[in-house]
Amino acid sequence: MAPLPQRLPQPKPTGSVPVIPTMDDTIRFETSPDRYRHWKLTFPDTHHGAVAVLAMDVQEDAGLRPGYPLKLNSYDLGVDIELADAIQRIRFEHPAVRALVVTSARDRIFSAGANIYMLGSSTHTFKVNFCKYTNETRVYLEELSQESGVPTLAAINGTASGGGYELVLACDEAILQDDGNAAVSLPEAPLLAVLPGTGGLTRLVDKRKVRRDLADVFSTLAEGVRGRRAVEWRLVDEVAPRSRFEVSVRDRTQKLIARSKRRATGEGVRLDPLDPARTVGRTEYRHVTLTVDDTRRVAEITLRGPIVSEASRDPRTAGADAWALRAFRELDDAILDLRFNHPTAGLILLRTQGDPDAVRSVDRALVAAGDDWFVREIRLHIRRVLKRIDLSARSVFALVEPGSCFVGSVFELTLAADRTYMLDDPDGATVVGLSDMNFGPLPMSNGLTRLQTRFLGEPTAVEKLQGVTEALDAGMAMKLGLVTFAPDPIDWDDEVRMAVEERTSLSPDAMTGMEASLRFAGPETMETKIFGRLTAWQNWIFQRPNAVGPKGALTVYGRPERAVFDYKRT
Amino acid sequence: MAPLPQRLPQPKPTGSVPVIPTMDDTIRFETSPDRYRHWKLTFPDTHHGAVAVLAMDVQEDAGLRPGYPLKLNSYDLGVDIELADAIQRIRFEHPAVRALVVTSARDRIFSAGANIYMLGSSTHTFKVNFCKYTNETRVYLEELSQESGVPTLAAINGTASGGGYELVLACDEAILQDDGNAAVSLPEAPLLAVLPGTGGLTRLVDKRKVRRDLADVFSTLAEGVRGRRAVEWRLVDEVAPRSRFEVSVRDRTQKLIARSKRRATGEGVRLDPLDPARTVGRTEYRHVTLTVDDTRRVAEITLRGPIVSEASRDPRTAGADAWALRAFRELDDAILDLRFNHPTAGLILLRTQGDPDAVRSVDRALVAAGDDWFVREIRLHIRRVLKRIDLSARSVFALVEPGSCFVGSVFELTLAADRTYMLDDPDGATVVGLSDMNFGPLPMSNGLTRLQTRFLGEPTAVEKLQGVTEALDAGMAMKLGLVTFAPDPIDWDDEVRMAVEERTSLSPDAMTGMEASLRFAGPETMETKIFGRLTAWQNWIFQRPNAVGPKGALTVYGRPERAVFDYKRT
Repeated sequence: MAPLPQRLPQPKPTGSVPVIPTMDDTIRFETSPDRYRHWKLTFPDTHHGAVAVLAMDVQEDAGLRPGYPLKLNSYDLGVDIELADAIQRIRFEHPAVRALVVTSARDRIFSAGANIYMLGSSTHTFKVNFCKYTNETRVYLEELSQESGVPTLAAINGTASGGGYELVLACDEAILQDDGNAAVSLPEAPLLAVLPGTGGLTRLVDKRKVRRDLADVFSTLAEGVRGRRAVEWRLVDEVAPRSRFEVSVRDRTQKLIARSKRRATGEGVRLDPLDPARTVGRTEYRHVTLTVDDTRRVAEITLRGPIVSEASRDPRTAGADAWALRAFRELDDAILDLRFNHPTAGLILLRTQGDPDAVRSVDRALVAAGDDWFVREIRLHIRRVLKRIDLSARSVFALVEPGSCFVGSVFELTLAADRTYMLDDPDGATVVGLSDMNFGPLPMSNGLTRLQTRFLGEPTAVEKLQGVTEALDAGMAMKLGLVTFAPDPIDWDDEVRMAVEERTSLSPDAMTGMEASLRFAGPETMETKIFGRLTAWQNWIFQRPNAVGPKGALTVYGRPERAVFDYKRT
Repeated sequence: MAPLPQRLPQPKPTGSVPVIPTMDDTIRFETSPDRYRHWKLTFPDTHHGAVAVLAMDVQEDAGLRPGYPLKLNSYDLGVDIELADAIQRIRFEHPAVRALVVTSARDRIFSAGANIYMLGSSTHTFKVNFCKYTNETRVYLEELSQESGVPTLAAINGTASGGGYELVLACDEAILQDDGNAAVSLPEAPLLAVLPGTGGLTRLVDKRKVRRDLADVFSTLAEGVRGRRAVEWRLVDEVAPRSRFEVSVRDRTQKLIARSKRRATGEGVRLDPLDPARTVGRTEYRHVTLTVDDTRRVAEITLRGPIVSEASRDPRTAGADAWALRAFRELDDAILDLRFNHPTAGLILLRTQGDPDAVRSVDRALVAAGDDWFVREIRLHIRRVLKRIDLSARSVFALVEPGSCFVGSVFELTLAADRTYMLDDPDGATVVGLSDMNFGPLPMSNGLTRLQTRFLGEPTAVEKLQGVTEALDAGMAMKLGLVTFAPDPIDWDDEVRMAVEERTSLSPDAMTGMEASLRFAGPETMETKIFGRLTAWQNWIFQRPNAVGPKGALTVYGRPERAVFDYKRT
């Protein structure tokens, strides 16, 4: 056991002190392989296209903001946006892929993790949202394996520290080069006085099932663990000397292909750019409109349902124009835009416009297509976007008004909302409805459907709802517990206005903690542990003076002075 | 839906501004019914001693510190220390009790929850530890019902707000007086910009299974919910008009008695005072010694095993002198002393002295006594104390040295520790050992035994260990994965010293978050949700400027000015 190691996983930046990024810089989440600067996505001939290789090759001077050179394959949000895109492309554009290898294009360095100077110079809000996004991306890797049948291997051809090792942990298997130097490590706590930001501690004990005392030692050992000990402690599955590394990776990859459950055939579907029209406070996508009112601190999202020709189209052959795929891609982009670019919009009002029967047709086709790989990917995509809403630190109210189309997968939006207001229309023309999409294909992070989570107190309610195929007016929806309030036309405007004003007047921090606590009743999964428990601890530590104060470890990292701690335990 | 209500659940203190408490005031955790100032514990004749009634009657001017009158049955730590004691007395001293009624001795007010001025004038560290202690006490109420067969009823004879309603949530059943005024509420988020501090949000959706949208409305409604709506929303089980309230409470209590599983008979066992000898930095109990070295930031706890006469005594008739009961009561007191009175002692070194075979005898007797109510209570007590260690925000290293007695229930201490160092004694005289107590009676908050949690990665290891009855030397203990390191006598001093110095040099906040994340692998329960997830969110919010900054809601509460928020969502 060495005393506190002084070995630094990332060199200090050359030149001037880091620039504090202003949060005015708008961040965009769309990219495509031809624009990648930090990853190389290839499909080596050796495996005849059955394997995708994602090699990290971070361009030092291409950070999202100036001030922090991305040395040693350290990353910032821009690097992760490309990773998320690559995973999405493998799903939709490369159906032949049966296994994914994540590795580094550099010699002797896998990844040094999230860039420390980027973190040190970011606001608390940005740090928290950055970690959430990277966490979602890591979960996408796991979902790629579990749900789409593309198992993943981390080929650790050099040191993987911090977020670098957390990327490894998100893969199914890990093989580490045994060259007397390459190590895996989580140096965040000992070097920076923060926690690993991307699920590392949870995956250590809950996924790799590392013994808790060894996990404790490992997580305080800045220099990490290498060689055989890394296998003995379950940190990786195998070590291989440099001379045999490639062969071992190939052997393991071959086995991954053999156990892949993916049965996709035919051509991939190219995901075209969303190309929304953006003006100040308003983004117009094809099926989605996002408006942001900074004065009221309210964002409004309106989703337009499919038109008849879209609803009647076979999704298996509709390509990227399939309404459900396109609409939820747009919704996803809007949510990310809100998270990063509109931090004060504390409340999202969700509306829809369209024909309820058209949504019902779309849902029917999505379910009927069963095993079709592309339609399956559409369903999984909807599921991910809904989870992204569940996990967003914004209040969400759904408003069910005349002309809306909250049915099935679209009704799921109201179930993801914190509350639903439905107009009690005297004509009974304002309706909601359920479809098979509400009863299985779109589980939350806790593994339950939103209806199951909603009715934990009366499980038979869900069974009863399964037989409900008709359109439901406000009276029925209230009776079945599907909406929160159903004001009549006289009260509607006042009631909604007052609810909106009240909600946006409350402390945004208290709302974030409250929503995170109320949204996920029922069982816990590794995912809810990461987003619920670990994230909360990270958020706490990310604002402690011992980390981010003037003499905190994250602040003084790379400078000559040492961190100074207040040693009171809390 | 009303706009943000301005109704205040607690009046402002009269006289001067609150005094900031200094943390130099030592807090003691021992009390007894004859010293209670805030609770009345009675056993009404109407139920022939089968019912305990705990009536809250907080003495306004008897706060633990000056500066915050405890109006309207609001409470501070001193009130909760009495509650915890009362639950413990019911267990051990009143075996005839078959049901517990928690109520208020005041008219029209049940409890206004934790005192806001106390919270507003406390340090972050104190707030967090206060919430942890009150959370543990609420869990003890639930354990009293689930494990000791004493079901609990909250008889809400007046408004229960905040922590007052959280006390209700910790009971099995709740009946609310329907008098047009009495309400239940969680006004923390809307009024104070913090979360309910004692498990309220989790119990709302996970225990009472309130629908999440209704929970959302309820948790932002400062004035709360009363009458029939409280039943419809599942917030209470019944409402009864003032005229029928007592009868309804009596009827429900009668049903609780009928379903009680408690079969205790005979006399209770009086829990005598621990009466330790305290000098600066040292506390000597009968079986436990606690020393605190503030310079090194290390606490050392030495537990002395039973002597032969203690080990051979039948625990069923040993009374409060039963070694296991007394030793773990002392350990509990020492842990609480550390938590509140020695905040900078970041590392606990756990040692034992004694005869391993004597501990084995004690364990055998504890298990053999099976259904005996008193011995069962001893086992449950050990379980609670071990959980208290799991949940303590201190690093814990166990040191297994010559002359130690880490066997069975005492070995469990090493399993609760973050690491164990065991001397690799060339004579093989330093040993550890297992007993039946390691395989069931002492589960963690996650519902698993510590061995099951430790070996999640190789479940068969636990089965194999069940056959291991012999004393294990360091070599065997290492091989079986029961200890972390086994230095030989030449390395021992240096290795332990360096590990201690390293650990105490690290950021205390990072260690707290890391330990909370690594200690509870495996399934989650309501308990781990409360202590892991909800607590972390509370801790985060408890240091946000929107709550505790100069213009934060908690700070300005009761003053003429309004809170000012930074509306950025995080």
